[in-house]
Amino acid sequence: MKIAILPGDGIGPEIMAEAVKVLNALELPLELASAPVGGAAYAASGHPLPEATLALAREADAVLFGAVGDWKYDQLPRHLRPEQAILGLRQALGLFANLRPAICHAPLTHASSLKPELVAGLDILIVRELTGDIYFGQPRGRRPAPDGAFAGADEGFDTMRYSRPEVERIARVAFEAARRRNGGRGGKVTSVDKANVLETSQLWREVVTEVHRDYPDVTLEHMYVDNAAMQLVKAPKNFDVIVTGNLFGDILSDEAAMLTGSIGMLPSASLNERGQGLFEPSHGSAPDIAGQGIANPLATILSAAMMLRYSLQRPDAAARIEDAVRQVLAEGLRTPDIFSEGTRRVGTAEMGNAVVRALK
Amino acid sequence: MKIAILPGDGIGPEIMAEAVKVLNALELPLELASAPVGGAAYAASGHPLPEATLALAREADAVLFGAVGDWKYDQLPRHLRPEQAILGLRQALGLFANLRPAICHAPLTHASSLKPELVAGLDILIVRELTGDIYFGQPRGRRPAPDGAFAGADEGFDTMRYSRPEVERIARVAFEAARRRNGGRGGKVTSVDKANVLETSQLWREVVTEVHRDYPDVTLEHMYVDNAAMQLVKAPKNFDVIVTGNLFGDILSDEAAMLTGSIGMLPSASLNERGQGLFEPSHGSAPDIAGQGIANPLATILSAAMMLRYSLQRPDAAARIEDAVRQVLAEGLRTPDIFSEGTRRVGTAEMGNAVVRALK
Ligand SMILES: CC(C)[C@H](C(=O)O)[C@@H](O)C(=O)O
Ligand SMILES: CC(C)[C@H](C(=O)O)[C@@H](O)C(=O)O
Repeated sequence: MKIAILPGDGIGPEIMAEAVKVLNALELPLELASAPVGGAAYAASGHPLPEATLALAREADAVLFGAVGDWKYDQLPRHLRPEQAILGLRQALGLFANLRPAICHAPLTHASSLKPELVAGLDILIVRELTGDIYFGQPRGRRPAPDGAFAGADEGFDTMRYSRPEVERIARVAFEAARRRNGGRGGKVTSVDKANVLETSQLWREVVTEVHRDYPDVTLEHMYVDNAAMQLVKAPKNFDVIVTGNLFGDILSDEAAMLTGSIGMLPSASLNERGQGLFEPSHGSAPDIAGQGIANPLATILSAAMMLRYSLQRPDAAARIEDAVRQVLAEGLRTPDIFSEGTRRVGTAEMGNAVVRALK
Repeated sequence: MKIAILPGDGIGPEIMAEAVKVLNALELPLELASAPVGGAAYAASGHPLPEATLALAREADAVLFGAVGDWKYDQLPRHLRPEQAILGLRQALGLFANLRPAICHAPLTHASSLKPELVAGLDILIVRELTGDIYFGQPRGRRPAPDGAFAGADEGFDTMRYSRPEVERIARVAFEAARRRNGGRGGKVTSVDKANVLETSQLWREVVTEVHRDYPDVTLEHMYVDNAAMQLVKAPKNFDVIVTGNLFGDILSDEAAMLTGSIGMLPSASLNERGQGLFEPSHGSAPDIAGQGIANPLATILSAAMMLRYSLQRPDAAARIEDAVRQVLAEGLRTPDIFSEGTRRVGTAEMGNAVVRALK
């Protein structure tokens, strides 16, 4: 099984080193090959997603991705900026299904902004469509405004769009996930859109409703995106699976992640139709703390576990990693982002080593 | 001074009745004229925004709006649904600037989902552009997908767009508001966009940066919308004024309102270039509790205060209402939505009467 290791920028290399330690400790037939991506790749070869990196990703069974982005690259033209590597990989590999769990680990409940009773035991899954919507819709660009009170003025524009088969396949992912999370039957899917305003959302809502006929055991509810942003704050535990488009999913998955109070713990998976996937922590590249050895590697380590489960068909190995992470938390080890009175503050490498030890 | 009173649906008529009591108690030369809107207007005359209602709004100095929407009307075709009245009024009156304060009133801090220290004293202002963006952009509709892997499939699409003058005028509103909130100089504006992905956002960011040259005393920061959704949860008090487009503003203003824990207290103003405005509570029509006399009228009463300040040039009268609301809260009066141990539970009318009494 071939795995492309793309560490990226900021804390990316540090957290990736720990995830690699953990993968090696599993003693599975994994072939790891590393390549630069993001700002690091731009610095080395003039492009955030060099051909060789893309080729490596294409032929791998799965990609383990660190994080990209650094203030150093903020002034580059957009097509050379680090985040173009993420968009490019999603598009090139057809990674249409982004799974983002928002889980509040029991020993970390206090770290949330929310009152403990609202987040204790939180375990929801955001399913975000990742290759469509306004992210890639054409036409887009600049033009003189074609009409309205400011006709002729300089205008920026983008196209939001979804086609029926795109909505169908992501809806299926969400309904299947609801079943899987609930012992094979049942569960709830909340489909989030803005159907009171957008044509794209009207199609979205129609198609999700149709696909639901194949999943009568799963409850389906529809919610407007503004209301979803509120309900996540008010009562996050009322959700089970949320399914939504690329743009709304970008916003809501980050809001949900932050609600848990420990975004340094949250992995994510982005899958294509062949089960190939890219796995990355939900947090960013945190250039402000890069190189200090204090970043939390657990989200990346848990992303490696998702990789084993979703792309490499080794749920047993995934569970071993997850158990090991639970154990180091139970032992009281904490990187600074999740530290609290009465626990033991450790650095990035010490945390990685502890997970390796717990695996044995 | 002519005021159009549009009560609407659900709890709209009940909360509006209390605001009207308060306005009458001011003994100002106000001429109030009422008209149906939303589902109530559809039921009476077949359209959510009848010609007569629109005409009344046009000739008024200000519109006081209750709320619209009810499950009864969910099956209507979109152009007849209650919320079309709001979109129609915004468009017809050119109400481009939506001001939504998110304030945590001291005695209600405990009602928030967030830990008290994160929201105590919260006072931020969201400035949302209200007549542009993907809400009204053309073209929009259904078509066979023009390209991509699913070319030819049924597709829904919308156009996001902003022109330079539209961004300029809303940016000015935000910078002016920052100064006003900070004693005439200074303050901070956070401009929220998705410039790493959207062309519309790139123009937005350029123009806001340009307009900022006229406000060197105000700090400007740019933030991606996904990050803004997180930072609002993590540290809402780090914001002062947020300025953003129609779609992102819809989501973030509701998220921010819910953070305060007392959305039943939050007014809003929607202004045009002539200072004419529509004023409405930030909460919805709550059909589930309509007719029970338990809805909180304070957001509507505080919307009337905003109306006096922004459209009727009577800041003195606005302050009187705001003081009266503070006083009834200090006296411990609470509608059920903000009730807690040790306070006195009152109904809609009793709350309105208490505000009137406190005015004297
Ligand atoms: C970097 C950016 C293009 C990206 C996105 O918006 O998808 C990021 O925010 C994410 O959610 O992975
Ligand atoms: C009802 C709907 C069209 C409206 C909007 O999205 O603008 C509402 O959510 C609001 O924020 O006033």
